[in-house]
Amino acid sequence: MLGLDPDPARLWPESGGDVAAHCRAVIDAAGEACVAVKPQVACFERLGAPGWEALYATAEHARAAGLLVVADAKRGDIDISARRYAEAFIAPGGLQADALTVSPYLGADSLEPFTAAASDAGAGLFVLVRTSNPGAADVQDLELATGGRVWEHVARLVGGLGTPGGESGLGEIGAVVGATAPEHLARARELMPHAVFLLPGIGAQGGRVEDLAPAFAPGRAAGLVTSSRSIVFAHESGGGEPPAAARAEAERLRAAAWSLA
Amino acid sequence: MLGLDPDPARLWPESGGDVAAHCRAVIDAAGEACVAVKPQVACFERLGAPGWEALYATAEHARAAGLLVVADAKRGDIDISARRYAEAFIAPGGLQADALTVSPYLGADSLEPFTAAASDAGAGLFVLVRTSNPGAADVQDLELATGGRVWEHVARLVGGLGTPGGESGLGEIGAVVGATAPEHLARARELMPHAVFLLPGIGAQGGRVEDLAPAFAPGRAAGLVTSSRSIVFAHESGGGEPPAAARAEAERLRAAAWSLA
Repeated sequence: MLGLDPDPARLWPESGGDVAAHCRAVIDAAGEACVAVKPQVACFERLGAPGWEALYATAEHARAAGLLVVADAKRGDIDISARRYAEAFIAPGGLQADALTVSPYLGADSLEPFTAAASDAGAGLFVLVRTSNPGAADVQDLELATGGRVWEHVARLVGGLGTPGGESGLGEIGAVVGATAPEHLARARELMPHAVFLLPGIGAQGGRVEDLAPAFAPGRAAGLVTSSRSIVFAHESGGGEPPAAARAEAERLRAAAWSLA
Repeated sequence: MLGLDPDPARLWPESGGDVAAHCRAVIDAAGEACVAVKPQVACFERLGAPGWEALYATAEHARAAGLLVVADAKRGDIDISARRYAEAFIAPGGLQADALTVSPYLGADSLEPFTAAASDAGAGLFVLVRTSNPGAADVQDLELATGGRVWEHVARLVGGLGTPGGESGLGEIGAVVGATAPEHLARARELMPHAVFLLPGIGAQGGRVEDLAPAFAPGRAAGLVTSSRSIVFAHESGGGEPPAAARAEAERLRAAAWSLA
């Protein structure tokens, strides 16, 4: 999955300071080696209303290129406010992403408006379960009086949402499980047998595709490896023109991920 | 605090379907009885780029009316992405809100870019600690092996952030503590003695100002009671014109809150 975290100070030169043009160029270069784009909504939102226009334009370009759109927004709110976020990102009339990342701290009833909207729109969700940052330990790894850790409790909650379907047996409710702590993957897969895993942290954050085998359900490609900086800035470490270097790095990651499935 | 959760289907009639005009009218009617506005960012975001323009316009109008702006966005992300959200909402060049609500699930290092930006901008944060919805119990109330609950652990983390300052002794890092579970307020105040509390859940969600006394630090108005629907739709239950009814309800809430401080 192609992460799009555009930084106005580090756009590919040919895009002339235009975030949407940069994202189009990155999609054109590396999209064919990916199944989805993952725009980091923060990077668009910091630009205000024009940033939202760039986000819409980027999603449209990705769809036209045959890619899924995973809006990495980590939203979480209650009741009507959660419904509004679901409308903003996945329901008709909004961004209409194919999936959205959401945060579980507010509990099951805060996820319900998102799961309902996802089900209506044929979209998916990725709930934050065990994230890729060092501080993930602060709350997610707390040990519970009943045994297990907070993230395992959340994983169980996520494992009970959605309906496994189709030939793949995969459900529409997935989980974010950081690629930087592969020791958690087998347990996460056990607690969420039908969830597609979104696996951030490859590359710049230190995660390695080769360590992710436990995330992949036997015989199914149920993990989405995602990388942004290591693809977009591949030319800085490996040389060559940005588009060709990005394409090569995306292909390398795809081959590595498929070899695990 | 005046919550602004504009619903295009329920705007005050005189605003003619214009969300920004509705928010201006609500601020003009009830603002004088409040210290701050709290736009629910979801309600603006669902409108895409024009919604962001309306959010900026609403913040500007509130500032011109002498009100603080608390962006209720419940953002949470890591590293560069968290910095981008901080730039979007509190740093110069963005919305420049006086405070932002943030989620703690990703841990202390995910809050750090927000606290740094808040400190630079002279702004504040409200970290979600114990929210007002029934599902808050699912994750926040889990009992820990070391004693206490998840939300108490988060409260301790929040209590250690920021620097108490000035005559009030209050810090710039506040906490969201739902007004619907007043039994938690005394403990929350004990764990976060210097935090301003943002207290949602009054009115439509069933919380009562009269039950919030334990949130107010002795002798200090360290709690911000917030209400949106009960002010904006006061005319539906109490009759009268929307602006006058909103003003009267905001004044009633203010008087009730001050009587506790």
